[in-house]
Amino acid sequence: MTHPRRTTVGIIGAGPAGLLLARLLHRSGIDCAVLESRERDYVEQRQRAGILEQGTVDVLRACGAGERMDREGMVHDGIELRYDGQVHRLDFPALTGGRRVMVYAQTEVVKDLIARQLDDGAPLLFGARATAVEGAHTTRPLIRYRHQGRAHTLNCDYVIGCDGSHGVSRQAVPESERRTYARGYPYSWLGVLADVPPSGDELVYAHSARGFALLSMRTPTVSRLYLQVPNGTDPADWPDDRIWDELQARTALDTPGKLARGPLTAKAVLPLHSSVTEPMRFGRLLLAGDAAHIVPPTGAKGLNLAVADVTVLARALAQAHRTGSTELLDAYSDTCLRRVWRAEHFSHFMTTTLHTAPDQSPFDTRLQLSQLDRIAASAHAAAELAENYTGLPLE
Amino acid sequence: MTHPRRTTVGIIGAGPAGLLLARLLHRSGIDCAVLESRERDYVEQRQRAGILEQGTVDVLRACGAGERMDREGMVHDGIELRYDGQVHRLDFPALTGGRRVMVYAQTEVVKDLIARQLDDGAPLLFGARATAVEGAHTTRPLIRYRHQGRAHTLNCDYVIGCDGSHGVSRQAVPESERRTYARGYPYSWLGVLADVPPSGDELVYAHSARGFALLSMRTPTVSRLYLQVPNGTDPADWPDDRIWDELQARTALDTPGKLARGPLTAKAVLPLHSSVTEPMRFGRLLLAGDAAHIVPPTGAKGLNLAVADVTVLARALAQAHRTGSTELLDAYSDTCLRRVWRAEHFSHFMTTTLHTAPDQSPFDTRLQLSQLDRIAASAHAAAELAENYTGLPLE
Repeated sequence: MTHPRRTTVGIIGAGPAGLLLARLLHRSGIDCAVLESRERDYVEQRQRAGILEQGTVDVLRACGAGERMDREGMVHDGIELRYDGQVHRLDFPALTGGRRVMVYAQTEVVKDLIARQLDDGAPLLFGARATAVEGAHTTRPLIRYRHQGRAHTLNCDYVIGCDGSHGVSRQAVPESERRTYARGYPYSWLGVLADVPPSGDELVYAHSARGFALLSMRTPTVSRLYLQVPNGTDPADWPDDRIWDELQARTALDTPGKLARGPLTAKAVLPLHSSVTEPMRFGRLLLAGDAAHIVPPTGAKGLNLAVADVTVLARALAQAHRTGSTELLDAYSDTCLRRVWRAEHFSHFMTTTLHTAPDQSPFDTRLQLSQLDRIAASAHAAAELAENYTGLPLE
Repeated sequence: MTHPRRTTVGIIGAGPAGLLLARLLHRSGIDCAVLESRERDYVEQRQRAGILEQGTVDVLRACGAGERMDREGMVHDGIELRYDGQVHRLDFPALTGGRRVMVYAQTEVVKDLIARQLDDGAPLLFGARATAVEGAHTTRPLIRYRHQGRAHTLNCDYVIGCDGSHGVSRQAVPESERRTYARGYPYSWLGVLADVPPSGDELVYAHSARGFALLSMRTPTVSRLYLQVPNGTDPADWPDDRIWDELQARTALDTPGKLARGPLTAKAVLPLHSSVTEPMRFGRLLLAGDAAHIVPPTGAKGLNLAVADVTVLARALAQAHRTGSTELLDAYSDTCLRRVWRAEHFSHFMTTTLHTAPDQSPFDTRLQLSQLDRIAASAHAAAELAENYTGLPLE
């Protein structure tokens, strides 16, 4: 592996944000390189989200990374809400004028993008751990990184931080230059993968006095299932049978045993956070995806926000490259943050409407049920959820 | 004043709920009587709400109490939201298929209903303080009350508690038979009346880092204005100039002095509460209006809920009177509670979206602004607010 000494756009992080940006830039003829601290195997195994908005699907197709997604992904036309003994289906195309979502795991998106990049794309270095970003406010920013025990420097015109919420990119910005808005939630998710076909065709979001549950899927033969659990829960306290029993109880399926059971192949507890760092640009260092913002997974927005960020960013960098104008780059942070805050609000809304907080009063529970009743009864309330879920058009 | 010994429907409380119910029953040929603990002058001076939903207007007209309202009331086709330097108007008829609201003070509704009742209606006793409701679970309930120092008993077929949240009716029900869902808010309203024409044609709801403000009106020459203040605020700490300055600052009017000032004729601090008592029926004692539920005033729902309750109740009592069937009476509580919880949710939504809580984080504030931006940008989000504000049709 050769180590590039300089590139136009240095990208830190080979998650979906960094990989997609590299692909978009490469197709625009802009020189770039991606540094990823982990090895390829690790990156391709990480379990993350699995719901792609219409706009995300469109971008992946347009950049030539949609072939396997279109073959293996499952188009979903709605979701089911279960609460208070009721079942209500939201019909997305009917509510949004034709918008749908695609169920296709983030980890598969990442595999597809890595394969394309290694095939015909820009340099992609695994095991390359960025340690510093310097010169963000100069015209010659650089990334310092270590690879196989040796220190390297990558000189760039722009550095893009796609290295998540714990990465070096955001931390490279002095606290005096950035502001972080954040909140935690008093519950986590226990997420499992099960080698069993999903019990239904669509996702089931269940409000229950026992806590939230989500029945989801990765493929026609692999289920992805979630239970609200207290923060600090040890997955070891949840043997397989307890998980299945609890999923059954919370999703209130009428027929006992209707929820098909199978071997669990992964089990992990995920805390829920909301966080936004403003601005998303510091001179020639720009943040994208989780490096700039985190949403709780209830609204399925994390991956889609990352894709939206780098789509906006690729256009802006292409404009700067072609014309020398920084108009779109100057607007990058504001453009993205409008969408980010919409998604933060929607994710918070879905989370607080569907979960039962430990200190929740009976009044609060009634408000949740009244909100869910309203979504079931009102075309406008249902459309508001459906538009946010399937994703707003890119500006 | 003669004291009736028995009546078909004994009504406790001569607020809008009790008075309107008496009017509706009287017109259905059902014998009833209203007991009010206060004197007429007091009842006719109480400052309360002033926004009538379309359905409330329709009911008042239909029962012959709409003449002065139609002459003096002001039909409003929208409200204005101000936040974060922006102004957004909601056009109610366009968003709801023609629904509007009427600005006409509750105290004027009460005057009109009292006048009609004293003119040609059922007995109405002022200064008659109900002290007990007995026999709710028998077929012969009764109201004990005191009038001019003497004890009286009113025997009834049904007793209707329209005596507000501190009245005797709800307290007559053992706690084991009822459940109350409640929450308070960490702020109050300072409400003033001003002898000055309103500065605009419509109500202004203002979100501000300084706290919520509402510019409203009673008549073309009297303004009704509100400021969010801390709980426990003493109105004496708010001289007139401070109130005007704060209203000006929070509503962010561009032109200094644009908010017309005038003499303040009333000044009071109002705490905000949400509360629902379930069920709303206990045998032959039925609760209506504030006796069963309280909403914070931000959504302008209190008076309208009371009118909806007694409209449903009048139909139910008329059915029982005409046919002997208690089908509608048996459904009364469930029928009303669906609407009540919708209004509770909407009032809570308006309150928590527009006020700044003392412990509010910057993240929470951004969520509020994102919600307000969404209402300004999305037809569905705007319609959801407008439908709730103008009022849902009676079932």
